[in-house]
Amino acid sequence: MAEARFGKLVVAGVGMIGGSLARALRKAGCVGEIVGVGRSAETLTKAARLGVIDRAESKWGGALAGADAVVLAAPVNAIIQILTDPAFAAALPAGAVVTDAGSVKLNIVNAARAGLGGKFSRFVAAHPIAGAERSGVAAADENLFHGAAVVLAPESGVDDDALAAVNALWESAGARIAVMDAGRHDRILAAASHLPHMLAYALSAQLAASEQRDEIFACAAGGLRDFTRVASSDPEMWRDIFLNNRESLLAWAGGFVDSIQKISELVEQGDGEALRELFLQVKNTRDKFVAGR
Amino acid sequence: MAEARFGKLVVAGVGMIGGSLARALRKAGCVGEIVGVGRSAETLTKAARLGVIDRAESKWGGALAGADAVVLAAPVNAIIQILTDPAFAAALPAGAVVTDAGSVKLNIVNAARAGLGGKFSRFVAAHPIAGAERSGVAAADENLFHGAAVVLAPESGVDDDALAAVNALWESAGARIAVMDAGRHDRILAAASHLPHMLAYALSAQLAASEQRDEIFACAAGGLRDFTRVASSDPEMWRDIFLNNRESLLAWAGGFVDSIQKISELVEQGDGEALRELFLQVKNTRDKFVAGR
Repeated sequence: MAEARFGKLVVAGVGMIGGSLARALRKAGCVGEIVGVGRSAETLTKAARLGVIDRAESKWGGALAGADAVVLAAPVNAIIQILTDPAFAAALPAGAVVTDAGSVKLNIVNAARAGLGGKFSRFVAAHPIAGAERSGVAAADENLFHGAAVVLAPESGVDDDALAAVNALWESAGARIAVMDAGRHDRILAAASHLPHMLAYALSAQLAASEQRDEIFACAAGGLRDFTRVASSDPEMWRDIFLNNRESLLAWAGGFVDSIQKISELVEQGDGEALRELFLQVKNTRDKFVAGR
Repeated sequence: MAEARFGKLVVAGVGMIGGSLARALRKAGCVGEIVGVGRSAETLTKAARLGVIDRAESKWGGALAGADAVVLAAPVNAIIQILTDPAFAAALPAGAVVTDAGSVKLNIVNAARAGLGGKFSRFVAAHPIAGAERSGVAAADENLFHGAAVVLAPESGVDDDALAAVNALWESAGARIAVMDAGRHDRILAAASHLPHMLAYALSAQLAASEQRDEIFACAAGGLRDFTRVASSDPEMWRDIFLNNRESLLAWAGGFVDSIQKISELVEQGDGEALRELFLQVKNTRDKFVAGR
């Protein structure tokens, strides 16, 4: 594991992800002071009481003065807003590194390029593929990133030492690092994560609107519970992800509708042999994928 | 818990479900001898070696002679085949009770009415809402039905003592009993279980067919894994369920496509407020459902 040492770490957005990272880095002994910034004074007070942050600041000037690393762990639109806020770029020390935890990368990288000016060379976009349907600082877990994949999407022109520092920061939290181009990240994650969330929302909305809702939920086994788990995620976070990865998400959603209509046709035609063959192929692919983990 | 005592129990289809029931009833001390029947001699040999059954029989005459209870735990089409096999009805002792473990009830009840003649009054259709993506007798678990719901769908005309005996059988295995009309069961389960399986198959098939498959699976977090878990289920079992619950499943599948297209439209229009509102409603409904479990 790379060595990391950040005298002052600033976490903007002290929810489940930001809070977990703060806890993990503190446990790893690689941060001095942790300062929290956020839209909700209540959340920041709670985070300080829980020991997740040492103190809160309400203005970028005070928050960023002397900072060595800044992590933006807010919903995607809030990250974009911070990166394009002239007060943020102005207060950012020239030597500090900046990373984020947004689930969409291309719009965030573009916002950083537009907003950070010369300090764009200190920005390394990141996406920790970890989390849960729980949200909020009370759910912060120092082990959340243990063994989790974190995708870094560094743009060309990023300083080598900034990339090394951000790499070390996430590794110190326990993560495995993967590097991927921002656009490719967004296309892949649309299938691996954003589409499954969309299906969970669509199914949950359909069943919630049904008159037979109570009976359906009463007869639900693990399948439905697993299937709709992610629909308990933070609504604002997922609104931002869907809207910031619109094109890829809609393309995969279209492909999904084709896939379910193909199965529906086989059911309608009573083509048991084709169904069994399809299910067998799917089972084999999935079992192989799970075995490989 | 009701008392149950079956001198001779016959299990037709000694897979995960039938094997788990055999183990649970043996543990509860309410069976004498357990005889297995099935299409695969290899499975029956394995079941006997594992102590799940005491012995196997290959013909209905020998299997059913002196039986007190018969459980049909095969895939739905195999259950229907047994119930309409004249050799089964002929060999069934007049006093024995018959139940099944199929996930679809209307076609099974109709097959029993057509095939069992006067002994139809001894048949109580059942659906244990338990299971997992694993299958086969090696996965049999004596605690599988602990606290699980089992839906009984007794037709009018069933003998009171037969209903009581089947009720006691499933309760002895640890299940909570619910009673529901067969047609209603099929409509409710189509939403609670069969549709989620269809979505898992459709998503898994779509991703498996993608050129980016390996990268997608490598970037998958718990959401996708949870979502596709049920796609590892037994292909024959699910082919039978889909084909025997065709009408309800297709109706719910159509509603699902409407639901995902509604969300896709909101994404396309960039209607963040409507998306956030929808996600919030869904989260509240789901959290309430989970809290109520």
